[in-house]
Amino acid sequence: MSEKKYAIGVDFGSESGRAVLVDVSNGQEVATAIHPYSNGVIDEKLPGTQIRLAPDWALQDPNDYLEVFKNTIPAVVKKGGIDPADVIGIGIDFTACTMLPTKKDGTPLCFLPEWRSNPHSWIKLWKHHAAQPEANKLNKTAREKGFDFLDRYGGKISSEWFFPKVWQILDEAPNVYAAADRFLEAADWVVWQLTGVETRNNTTAGYKAIWSKRQGFPPNEFFKALDPRMENVIEEKMSTDIDFIGQKAGGLTDEAAQWTGLKPGTAVAIANVDAHVAVPASTVTDVGSMVIIMGTSNCHMVLGKEEKVVPGMCGYVDEGILPGFFGYEAGQSCVGDHFAWFVENCVPAAYTEEAKDRGVDIHKLLEERAARLKPGESGLLALDWWNGNRSVLVDVDLTGLLIGQTLATKPEEIYRALIEATAYGTRVIVDAFEKHGVAVNEIVATGGLPDRNKLLMQIYADVTGKEVKIAASQQTPALGSAMFGAVAAGKANGGYDSIYEASKKMAHLRDERFAPRPEAQAVYNRLFKEYLVLHDYFGRGGNDVMKRLKALRAEIIES
Amino acid sequence: MSEKKYAIGVDFGSESGRAVLVDVSNGQEVATAIHPYSNGVIDEKLPGTQIRLAPDWALQDPNDYLEVFKNTIPAVVKKGGIDPADVIGIGIDFTACTMLPTKKDGTPLCFLPEWRSNPHSWIKLWKHHAAQPEANKLNKTAREKGFDFLDRYGGKISSEWFFPKVWQILDEAPNVYAAADRFLEAADWVVWQLTGVETRNNTTAGYKAIWSKRQGFPPNEFFKALDPRMENVIEEKMSTDIDFIGQKAGGLTDEAAQWTGLKPGTAVAIANVDAHVAVPASTVTDVGSMVIIMGTSNCHMVLGKEEKVVPGMCGYVDEGILPGFFGYEAGQSCVGDHFAWFVENCVPAAYTEEAKDRGVDIHKLLEERAARLKPGESGLLALDWWNGNRSVLVDVDLTGLLIGQTLATKPEEIYRALIEATAYGTRVIVDAFEKHGVAVNEIVATGGLPDRNKLLMQIYADVTGKEVKIAASQQTPALGSAMFGAVAAGKANGGYDSIYEASKKMAHLRDERFAPRPEAQAVYNRLFKEYLVLHDYFGRGGNDVMKRLKALRAEIIES
Repeated sequence: MSEKKYAIGVDFGSESGRAVLVDVSNGQEVATAIHPYSNGVIDEKLPGTQIRLAPDWALQDPNDYLEVFKNTIPAVVKKGGIDPADVIGIGIDFTACTMLPTKKDGTPLCFLPEWRSNPHSWIKLWKHHAAQPEANKLNKTAREKGFDFLDRYGGKISSEWFFPKVWQILDEAPNVYAAADRFLEAADWVVWQLTGVETRNNTTAGYKAIWSKRQGFPPNEFFKALDPRMENVIEEKMSTDIDFIGQKAGGLTDEAAQWTGLKPGTAVAIANVDAHVAVPASTVTDVGSMVIIMGTSNCHMVLGKEEKVVPGMCGYVDEGILPGFFGYEAGQSCVGDHFAWFVENCVPAAYTEEAKDRGVDIHKLLEERAARLKPGESGLLALDWWNGNRSVLVDVDLTGLLIGQTLATKPEEIYRALIEATAYGTRVIVDAFEKHGVAVNEIVATGGLPDRNKLLMQIYADVTGKEVKIAASQQTPALGSAMFGAVAAGKANGGYDSIYEASKKMAHLRDERFAPRPEAQAVYNRLFKEYLVLHDYFGRGGNDVMKRLKALRAEIIES
Repeated sequence: MSEKKYAIGVDFGSESGRAVLVDVSNGQEVATAIHPYSNGVIDEKLPGTQIRLAPDWALQDPNDYLEVFKNTIPAVVKKGGIDPADVIGIGIDFTACTMLPTKKDGTPLCFLPEWRSNPHSWIKLWKHHAAQPEANKLNKTAREKGFDFLDRYGGKISSEWFFPKVWQILDEAPNVYAAADRFLEAADWVVWQLTGVETRNNTTAGYKAIWSKRQGFPPNEFFKALDPRMENVIEEKMSTDIDFIGQKAGGLTDEAAQWTGLKPGTAVAIANVDAHVAVPASTVTDVGSMVIIMGTSNCHMVLGKEEKVVPGMCGYVDEGILPGFFGYEAGQSCVGDHFAWFVENCVPAAYTEEAKDRGVDIHKLLEERAARLKPGESGLLALDWWNGNRSVLVDVDLTGLLIGQTLATKPEEIYRALIEATAYGTRVIVDAFEKHGVAVNEIVATGGLPDRNKLLMQIYADVTGKEVKIAASQQTPALGSAMFGAVAAGKANGGYDSIYEASKKMAHLRDERFAPRPEAQAVYNRLFKEYLVLHDYFGRGGNDVMKRLKALRAEIIES
């Protein structure tokens, strides 16, 4: 044992798990290891069978998560060249809502031979979208019966969330529903496997399972209204004991110590969500800063001291991001995905060849050319709805729009228009927060995009009028989990007594900042006005042509 | 001399001239020759000088036209292996308004050393757009002073037309204006060179120079209101003797006979316009059929027995297309240009490579893929305004729009949406004609596109609900000119006494026809409704965002 203490953060993604070994004193990321899930995203056939899944299904295998622990934790300890006894805590974060049915002792139903061939016994990944009918019925019932919890979720519960998924199991496999002693988030399940202690974190409960600190879960009469068989789902299949993030779930069991090579009893934190755990890892522990995780989509998080209803956000949860704050979340469904779509479908051969000849990435080439344009120079304007609109319209049936093309329009101009469109989309969200009393004074960006695309950062600054800072870590979720691991260990064991202290020491920003440029801001203010008019015309019922085109498309494809 | 008689049509395009030798008895195209203009489109520097032209300028060299006669006519006679004495007539057609200043004897000012270095002494090609300020002032004055001739031109005179160009010369080079004894169309100038006879055809006069059979040119007070120096422009620089198409201008002079190798005295027809001369060459000589010349843009022509005002058309002229009819013309600014833009800027390398590997044209590949889609399947809708809108909105400041994109949108879906958009644009024109009493019962397509793109033809049939036929000739302007040449020769000399007889014998349709498919029509009727709503919202002042974006772009570029 040395004086240096370490924490490990394990970040569970859709395709793989990642462990990062972090120096508790300064947040230095000493070693990283990634383990891809053997069964990945299960969306065609149930593994080892010929059982086909319907198009909107997406499952996972819980065993893959255990393999992540067994492979990555020994790997980072070894790579880091450290004494495993110096690892004082572990934290995990997960995609959500990713949920499964288990027996009372935590055994997943899909591990049991009698249930293994029933797809409903497996894990439903966040992007399992087959519970849309249940989500629709749930929203309708909640509205009709006057349950006010929809207000906390921008007016609508998504098919990705907890109870639509539970209800789908009941609808389609009542025997699986009956056999399940528990429904729980995979996040809590992996913590259970490490510690032997069943916990339920308040973050996924709050954002995905309609729980709130003040009101708890919806009352039984609500579930009865959905389906009489679900009346007592909370008492029968859930737990009303909710554990708050920042707490310790337990210590590593002997078995888990053996899997990981760490000391039995090593502190394990209450489970958390990938996006939320990135907030303190991006140095944000107070009101006024919006953290945006920018990847294929954008996730916006802000802390608030008071409870505010912001129409169209994804949700807010008391203590959902950090203790002592309301955690507000909003989202854009399509950001990096826009650019990936554009590169795959719209970039001419001449550009691809130039990029190849010069040995640069095609995104880099497009960014380079787009950066030479001034705001307003392209004459183009886009609505960033290729994948629907999450915040603030909450409408998956909206689609894309590009306006202003001429025969002189070049690919880099369209590329820039798409970047600008996502920035306008973020400004709509920022403005909604500010209008409803949640302060946003600056933006801290993290995720895959900020690192790669400076133009994007500058445009976000110019469009929103907020300074944009960038988190130093390129893996803020894993770093954040390690920070929560250090907090679970506590100061007495070489860690921290609060996530605030941990963030102060372990989280950092890059030196590079992007300040709004007044001249660009002036032009973007004009363009944003135009964006808003189109946003409301096509998004708020002025002309529902997007929905009609989408419905016609579905009609034609099905005919 | 044999019994077979021939006529030659010479079609003057923007980059080259084309002669076609045609069998008068049946319209068979015996031989074709093309001669590219040495000086092409002059839009950078005046030939042989360092004199730079401003961006919107486009000039030509009249000598290039003479070279066309000298090269192509001997070539087709030789290729055809015929006796030049069997050529009974020549017709020519031209781009319009393509005009020049000359001396009284027809010598172009630019042939004279004292004027040669002044750009205003050269030919202004149809797409010379530098007279926009004059066009704007002209329209404003006409509206304010209540001159009703704007009604004949869809409400607006274009910068491409005759008097804006004349006025630009006066504005910028009053000495050239003063030195010019004549301003005339290049079409009439080349006929003058062949015959030694100065004529002015009623077609260009009617469509481009605000002349009408009933009212003649606008009165002197109108020109005085524009600029007092122009008060007597008609008497001083024009001619009020207007010659009608279908007549003979004169016979070949000895000099012209020497250039061409034909007999002196060979009949030469009154000059005509490329689009208009294609109408009888497409078999259309009566009301009810719309001829569409489909190339980079669409030109729509319909014959009518009565005078009707159709808002937004390009113009109508009594006897402007055929004797005895009003000739109605409308246009779409961007058709083939859309597809060319798309192929150059938006088609990914994978498609380009597949086309190359399979040895097919990229347009062919896109058509193939687009043809597999059903109407409505793409979920996309476009406004075909990449190059503004000619008919019926008459607004060059409108720009493009594409709506309905998702992350699943493929290039062939966008390609098809652009084809469909041009078809909706044509339907707007067809509907406008029908609504205002000009019958359109079927469409006859000619030009470069119908030959290459069957999908386009089928979509036009499905969208308009009209049967689409295709002219057999792939060079209907040259064929039409030859037909007018045969009419100039007359029946007594082996030709015809009217263009109607000539058309009956010499013009043909292909066997292939495209009938509207009821199922596709039903879907397109729904989509056209959506198109119309967007057309009016963005095109008629509901939201002038396109103009504001374009103005902002200009502001940024100029700053």
